[in-house]
Amino acid sequence: MSYDTLRLSHEDGIDILTLYRPGALNAFNATMSAEIEDYFRRVNDRDEVRAVVVTGDGRAFCAGVDLSSGLGKFADPARAATTLAELDAHFDDESMRGVRDIGGRSTLAIYDCIKPVIAAINGPCVGIGATLTLPMDVRFASEDARIGFVFGRVGIVLEACSSWFLPRIVGMSRALEWCYRARVMSAQEALDGGLLRELVPGDRLLAHAVAFARSLIEVSSPVSIAMTRQLLLRNSAAAHPAEAHKAESLTLLHALTHDATEGVRAFHEKRAPRFTSSPSRDLPPFFADWVAGRRGPADAN
Amino acid sequence: MSYDTLRLSHEDGIDILTLYRPGALNAFNATMSAEIEDYFRRVNDRDEVRAVVVTGDGRAFCAGVDLSSGLGKFADPARAATTLAELDAHFDDESMRGVRDIGGRSTLAIYDCIKPVIAAINGPCVGIGATLTLPMDVRFASEDARIGFVFGRVGIVLEACSSWFLPRIVGMSRALEWCYRARVMSAQEALDGGLLRELVPGDRLLAHAVAFARSLIEVSSPVSIAMTRQLLLRNSAAAHPAEAHKAESLTLLHALTHDATEGVRAFHEKRAPRFTSSPSRDLPPFFADWVAGRRGPADAN
Amino acid sequence: MSYDTLRLSHEDGIDILTLYRPGALNAFNATMSAEIEDYFRRVNDRDEVRAVVVTGDGRAFCAGVDLSSGLGKFADPARAATTLAELDAHFDDESMRGVRDIGGRSTLAIYDCIKPVIAAINGPCVGIGATLTLPMDVRFASEDARIGFVFGRVGIVLEACSSWFLPRIVGMSRALEWCYRARVMSAQEALDGGLLRELVPGDRLLAHAVAFARSLIEVSSPVSIAMTRQLLLRNSAAAHPAEAHKAESLTLLHALTHDATEGVRAFHEKRAPRFTSSPSRDLPPFFADWVAGRRGPADAN
Repeated sequence: MSYDTLRLSHEDGIDILTLYRPGALNAFNATMSAEIEDYFRRVNDRDEVRAVVVTGDGRAFCAGVDLSSGLGKFADPARAATTLAELDAHFDDESMRGVRDIGGRSTLAIYDCIKPVIAAINGPCVGIGATLTLPMDVRFASEDARIGFVFGRVGIVLEACSSWFLPRIVGMSRALEWCYRARVMSAQEALDGGLLRELVPGDRLLAHAVAFARSLIEVSSPVSIAMTRQLLLRNSAAAHPAEAHKAESLTLLHALTHDATEGVRAFHEKRAPRFTSSPSRDLPPFFADWVAGRRGPADAN
Repeated sequence: MSYDTLRLSHEDGIDILTLYRPGALNAFNATMSAEIEDYFRRVNDRDEVRAVVVTGDGRAFCAGVDLSSGLGKFADPARAATTLAELDAHFDDESMRGVRDIGGRSTLAIYDCIKPVIAAINGPCVGIGATLTLPMDVRFASEDARIGFVFGRVGIVLEACSSWFLPRIVGMSRALEWCYRARVMSAQEALDGGLLRELVPGDRLLAHAVAFARSLIEVSSPVSIAMTRQLLLRNSAAAHPAEAHKAESLTLLHALTHDATEGVRAFHEKRAPRFTSSPSRDLPPFFADWVAGRRGPADAN
Repeated sequence: MSYDTLRLSHEDGIDILTLYRPGALNAFNATMSAEIEDYFRRVNDRDEVRAVVVTGDGRAFCAGVDLSSGLGKFADPARAATTLAELDAHFDDESMRGVRDIGGRSTLAIYDCIKPVIAAINGPCVGIGATLTLPMDVRFASEDARIGFVFGRVGIVLEACSSWFLPRIVGMSRALEWCYRARVMSAQEALDGGLLRELVPGDRLLAHAVAFARSLIEVSSPVSIAMTRQLLLRNSAAAHPAEAHKAESLTLLHALTHDATEGVRAFHEKRAPRFTSSPSRDLPPFFADWVAGRRGPADAN
């Protein structure tokens, strides 16, 4: 995998994905959108990657969408009369290029990821820079990072599925206030609002995020971690706990013939388990149907 | 617009809507329900109004439903056998007068509002007085305000869609505790529980709420603010982030031919934008379908 | 009602349900699952019970699922190819024994309960011990209790519908972190994370939880409390506030011919109300349809 707008390194189970557009404060563009989507779709097949840390190159995390040549290349104004029904019916079709928000393509891929994803916000993090971090599991920031949901200021709205993610993280009142105001705020204000887990001095931020990511994966089975992420993200928005019950039941049933045998044996033998199941091969059989079913066009309205 | 139970004033873009039933602590009745609904349905067409502050006349915010002649005039006990299917099928029909909770008619209109709505709770705020504020974006209260979800005490239950709103604001444990107990609590307790943003001395409350409302609308495009409110309120409860993606995509696409052009130009010219789109005329074409689709009878069960 | 794995006592309106497997730290097994489900299904018919406190016998709350003879007796690995569609279609059938998670059977019964349910976590509370408390209204713990979502450590995943409940209580970031890590944490850490309401010295824990339960039911009508619990739990996850409006409207209408008459009269006479409606007989007519409709197989995907 070689990307124009991303740099990738790997440290003993942890991928470090760096937004990389030197001289442009890592501004987001259509190439970066496609490359982030590609990275997060592929990482699910790479068992050697146990968790992902996302950061920015140089002094910025991501300064927002690249406005140097206007917004017109991100979406096609000629398609402005597209209806919801058309978008539903052709959601995955090539014809919806020019209709579908390129930020949302990236965040839906992060949502579908089966590894923990940690944001290390090392500097300015604005617009899609900010919303890109919302489907990640935990956000750390350097003390001098600045974060802004500034869409209203340029006459657009919050995107990248952030109208789904943001109120779930910071509550409705704060989400509305931050987006109406469209201000760039300090990392401290974002911390106080519940967006961030912790501020870290800039020179220790990446190491801190990597160590945190590593602490998450020390004990649990990789397949358990994969299913934990998807069960929590999806069932947190289900209409009834019975939906969780169904997906959990089929996951547990599958685990009995996979990692649970070793897990229980290790428990009895008072030793660390040695799990052998593979997230790329050994997700439960119902998983593909479940994931597809919850985002079907017919569900949307 | 002239109302019996409301007073309306306007200060440079901000409407101040005052619950007004002198001598009755602004108790809620069928007239006030109809007038609040009328106000909030109409304000969406008044572009000169950028935000709304709601407060109470005199020393109370709203003392609850007017019990002076019993509850019988708010609903028709002869209709008590109405089924969910009947209510779904005839939701908007005149025949459902006497069935549908009059508090919910008001709060659904506030939910549908496309302007920021700020509560300035200036005194007793009880029953429907309290639940009326839940679909508002931010709640301020005077230090001596008192707030109570007292329904159980008179043998009824939380209403005005508050079983949807309240747990999203204060969490499930606290929502259950407050409603079971049915106690009137201090403003401090409501603040500690996350219901309020801030306590303000009574003599500065209204000015504080108006200044706050003004701070929200200084920068963003009015259409952006309208769509931000509706995207956040509606997608926060969607089953999957792809639903947000669809609505955001169509909103962004529409913005490209409206306020985004000016927004991006102003950004490049390092000046304040001068947005010209109108929330009453220039919402995206998909908006009406989207709003209707999410509340269709077939969805409800 | 006589149970093998539970002890039941009653103190003036409050049932105390004690998880009871002496010598096994009250570890959860198939019998306990069936007995908890039986208890919570039946308690809805016992009007003399106004609230339930759940605790553990001896020094533990519940040490998790009983691993003494492996996990194989809780689910049938031969059924691992069951599809979501099959599970939906036969959800309540006997054929799904061996497929459906036994923890979820218990928590769905607690979710359906129409009385306040309070957890008094008196010691180790691990795995299903921890997830069993999530559908309860409020959780107290002794200062030396220890709590762990340790599923990943034995190669399984969070269960008992906890992928629905946990992020709603502690937020998504923390839910993911706790489950990935699979660590047993101190009561203080669980308190800081929002899982618990309060820590109480062990020797006063049960009395404290009982007094708290009593404080919830002092004033409100028993039918109001029943409907308050179900309206909040169910509508908190509805897609649109209009769903809450429908259920609340029909509940209010029914109350007019039941406890509201006495409630309003007592209010006018400035005396305590004497409610006579019975939760076992006097729930609104729409209730059964509403509860069934929200968990239908067709809804699940």
